[in-house]
Amino acid sequence: VAKRLEKFKTTIFTQMSMLAIKHGAINLGQGFPNFDGPEFVKEAAIQAIRDGKNQYARGYGIPDLNSAIAARFKKDTGLVVDPETEVTVTSGCTEAIAATMLGLINPGDEVILFAPFYDSYEATLSMAGADIKSITLRPPDFAVPMKELRSAISKKTRAILINTPHNPTGKMFTREELHEIASLCIENDVLVFTDEVYDKLAFEMDHISMASLPGMYDRTVTMNSLGKTFSLTGWKIGWAIAPPHLTWGVRQAHSFLTFATSTHAQWAAAVALRAPDSYYVELKRDYTAKKQILVEGLKEAGFKVFPSSGTYFVVVDHTPFGLENDIAFCEFLIKEVGVVAIPTSVFYLNPEEGKNIVRFTFCKDEGTLRSAVERMKQKL
Amino acid sequence: VAKRLEKFKTTIFTQMSMLAIKHGAINLGQGFPNFDGPEFVKEAAIQAIRDGKNQYARGYGIPDLNSAIAARFKKDTGLVVDPETEVTVTSGCTEAIAATMLGLINPGDEVILFAPFYDSYEATLSMAGADIKSITLRPPDFAVPMKELRSAISKKTRAILINTPHNPTGKMFTREELHEIASLCIENDVLVFTDEVYDKLAFEMDHISMASLPGMYDRTVTMNSLGKTFSLTGWKIGWAIAPPHLTWGVRQAHSFLTFATSTHAQWAAAVALRAPDSYYVELKRDYTAKKQILVEGLKEAGFKVFPSSGTYFVVVDHTPFGLENDIAFCEFLIKEVGVVAIPTSVFYLNPEEGKNIVRFTFCKDEGTLRSAVERMKQKL
Ligand SMILES: CSCCC(=O)C(=O)O
Ligand SMILES: CSCCC(=O)C(=O)O
Repeated sequence: VAKRLEKFKTTIFTQMSMLAIKHGAINLGQGFPNFDGPEFVKEAAIQAIRDGKNQYARGYGIPDLNSAIAARFKKDTGLVVDPETEVTVTSGCTEAIAATMLGLINPGDEVILFAPFYDSYEATLSMAGADIKSITLRPPDFAVPMKELRSAISKKTRAILINTPHNPTGKMFTREELHEIASLCIENDVLVFTDEVYDKLAFEMDHISMASLPGMYDRTVTMNSLGKTFSLTGWKIGWAIAPPHLTWGVRQAHSFLTFATSTHAQWAAAVALRAPDSYYVELKRDYTAKKQILVEGLKEAGFKVFPSSGTYFVVVDHTPFGLENDIAFCEFLIKEVGVVAIPTSVFYLNPEEGKNIVRFTFCKDEGTLRSAVERMKQKL
Repeated sequence: VAKRLEKFKTTIFTQMSMLAIKHGAINLGQGFPNFDGPEFVKEAAIQAIRDGKNQYARGYGIPDLNSAIAARFKKDTGLVVDPETEVTVTSGCTEAIAATMLGLINPGDEVILFAPFYDSYEATLSMAGADIKSITLRPPDFAVPMKELRSAISKKTRAILINTPHNPTGKMFTREELHEIASLCIENDVLVFTDEVYDKLAFEMDHISMASLPGMYDRTVTMNSLGKTFSLTGWKIGWAIAPPHLTWGVRQAHSFLTFATSTHAQWAAAVALRAPDSYYVELKRDYTAKKQILVEGLKEAGFKVFPSSGTYFVVVDHTPFGLENDIAFCEFLIKEVGVVAIPTSVFYLNPEEGKNIVRFTFCKDEGTLRSAVERMKQKL
């Protein structure tokens, strides 16, 4: 294995999902729904396959999907972008992240992450040869420590990576935080890469796109995907929106990472993105109910639950149960209780910082959530 | 754009396909069929979507597809591989190539390519920081210049990349060539990365997998895909087969490039790979007829046609028509004749070497091929 990937293990999501199967445990680990995506989107994919949309798509996306992405972005942020030069369709947001890092970051560039961070950020930055700096968001509120951030920025800082709503914590970056980060970026000529795959799962406040802040669009790559919002995580449709000079780098990398993305799934994604607002209202209503079941249950089971305002995740402090760290706790939880959670220490440069925290997802049907809660209340 | 990608342009395939649309020219450029894939595979994908196979697949492939890939490999090569530790499903062979380079090559490692080469090899090696050496295969027979190869190998050589049947030339590496390359690799402890996406389109001799040669499996990554063989280039299902120690590197990169590949397409791919032999016999019969139409037509139109023994491509010398190079000729062909071909100079480290050669594909229905030939016979 190449040195750049030596330190990485099988992703924690894969590890935990495989353990879930092995032990017959209820999987509240990896973030995928155990219910299906909407019929109208599935039927659109079936129609596209039948209609012979089965050959290579245009590398950066079929025109219809690029337009639908631009239209939704306009609706969400008020920004008008050119679907032909500012939108790139990728094989999931994971590929958008990889293409952004490999397409825009040079060896020795510094990139700042907020820990805990989704594991692919670190791995793809490592592929790009970046120097990674990490600023830790601390419980209970995971606020951005602005002084630390300010002093982390140097002449070599090329980009700050933001993820809001934030996986794993459920934190949403506040308007004040985003404004302060934006000022720092403008002052120091730093880019923002922002992963907003959970933008439609914002429960307590409105999601704010960094790109929509004054002066920011020109220095921002906004990444998103179909999977979370449409409960079709297996379709692997993502995208990156950025001004033409940044899109160029993203597309260059994308061209050689996957070249193009599933054609029929793109046709269906275009249909999905044109869903009426009621779709999103209902989605949020459903997830609000699921969230309540899980959060109440975790509290009753004895966890200290940190507030989650977005995503379909919630993090808790497991120390009331006396296990020495997050990994030991998750092992105990799988084997003795029959529930899978995700340890978070792997999402920090310094694993110590995550040792008290584990993540649960509520993207499961209510029956599953109730059973998991029942097990934890009885056996913990 | 990051330095590693600065020298690359929009892929030639995208450029030419966009010109084809703009000028209403017949597209014999990018290699995608203008006919549809088989009904039984399309129906399998539709069934999978209906059956709710719509969430993340296991990162390295659904068990059913990994097994089907291993079974086909056994049938083709006699080699028994473990689907769980030696097969990785990727988003097209393009991603298998990227994952192999980024997962196994360190900065400063030398990798040897045979020119002309598929453009993603050079771009992904550049992402991995490799030093690229290129050995040119020269017309008319594109034989491997063994002495040159031998003297190109150094202590720093980590891998040789082979593509057989070979895009763009249609050359197939002979048993003798493969044996000699294998000896060199064993002698010098060098890996082989082999792209065999056209293995089922071998017209004049049997395809030979490098992995099947004595002593080679343990040092070979064999890459393949569904798209070419099943006329479903838009589905983007590929794979890499390699011994566990090499698979580990490929999977690490794959985990962070795309994480997983379209779940329903994987279910259908497993069905496809279990097709009876008669499927491949018919495929080859169809392509033999198409090839004859194109090759005869090109000769009648006045090209010097080089023999192609595999792939759905054929290369020609365009110099009888007096244009100064391949790019000028392709422009002329699009604008004045209404046919798109692919210039090959972009597939060499030194573009001069490809300036007399252009590539045509015959993966089009017979009517399209006849119309293209008619245009060339009349207007050239
Ligand atoms: C790509 S696997 C991870 C799914 C996910 O987003 C999560 O569980 O955090
Ligand atoms: C991925 S686009 C290229 C398709 C192809 O294999 C070719 O035309 O050479």
